[in-house]
Amino acid sequence: MLEVNSIKKGIVLDHITVENGLKIFNKLMLDKVDYPVVLLMNVPSKAMGKKDIIKIENNIDIDLDFLGLIDHNISVNIIEDGKVILKKKVSIPKRVKGIFPCHNPRCITNFDNYVKPSFELVSPSRLAYQCDFCEEITEYKI
Amino acid sequence: MLEVNSIKKGIVLDHITVENGLKIFNKLMLDKVDYPVVLLMNVPSKAMGKKDIIKIENNIDIDLDFLGLIDHNISVNIIEDGKVILKKKVSIPKRVKGIFPCHNPRCITNFDNYVKPSFELVSPSRLAYQCDFCEEITEYKI
Repeated sequence: MLEVNSIKKGIVLDHITVENGLKIFNKLMLDKVDYPVVLLMNVPSKAMGKKDIIKIENNIDIDLDFLGLIDHNISVNIIEDGKVILKKKVSIPKRVKGIFPCHNPRCITNFDNYVKPSFELVSPSRLAYQCDFCEEITEYKI
Repeated sequence: MLEVNSIKKGIVLDHITVENGLKIFNKLMLDKVDYPVVLLMNVPSKAMGKKDIIKIENNIDIDLDFLGLIDHNISVNIIEDGKVILKKKVSIPKRVKGIFPCHNPRCITNFDNYVKPSFELVSPSRLAYQCDFCEEITEYKI
């Protein structure tokens, strides 16, 4: 089996649903960085059958709301001195701000650069969010 | 450091020039497969400073001419029972067939589906190839 040994310091995104690994890799712009990163796809998983994993040999800020929006199965492990010092589960965010635009072309957030689009979750299954400004529903798509 | 342990059976593309790893990963359509694959980027290398590596837990046909065209630094390791049974260096192919189209829009290869474009290398530094049919020069870009 393909295994990646422990990293000394950095972040491991584990339990990524298969097919989401490369999408998340690209969304986090890990193809543009100059430190070591690893993308593992379709690796065997007891809990999930198969899963994707991303390992990042660097401490970077990762927006957990953003990850939760893309894939709420992900667990985030923060590594220091080769040990997991923090384990977090992401979840579908109840509120999001500035991650995606409002679906309504006439919404003020789409033509005023000083107003960031912000939303409240109304349907977790459809990832449907209601705009704080115009109340229109936007369904988030990866 | 991020390390990936040995694979049991498959292919390792080593010594990939940094920034080419993801391009090759995508060109080989490894994002679409259902067996385990790993992309390592920016890993330390004695010879190269940094390098990318691709590990494929499956025996697939890889067109070495195609790899040589993209990155002639790559070494290909074929793995069986956890051991390297074959090591190959790729090189810029002297002749290529059916990998890229002829630059000349009037070339027969661009409107007759039964004629595969084929070329002879005329400048390795520019990756310039001369068409066997119309003699126009095409410079290959990744």
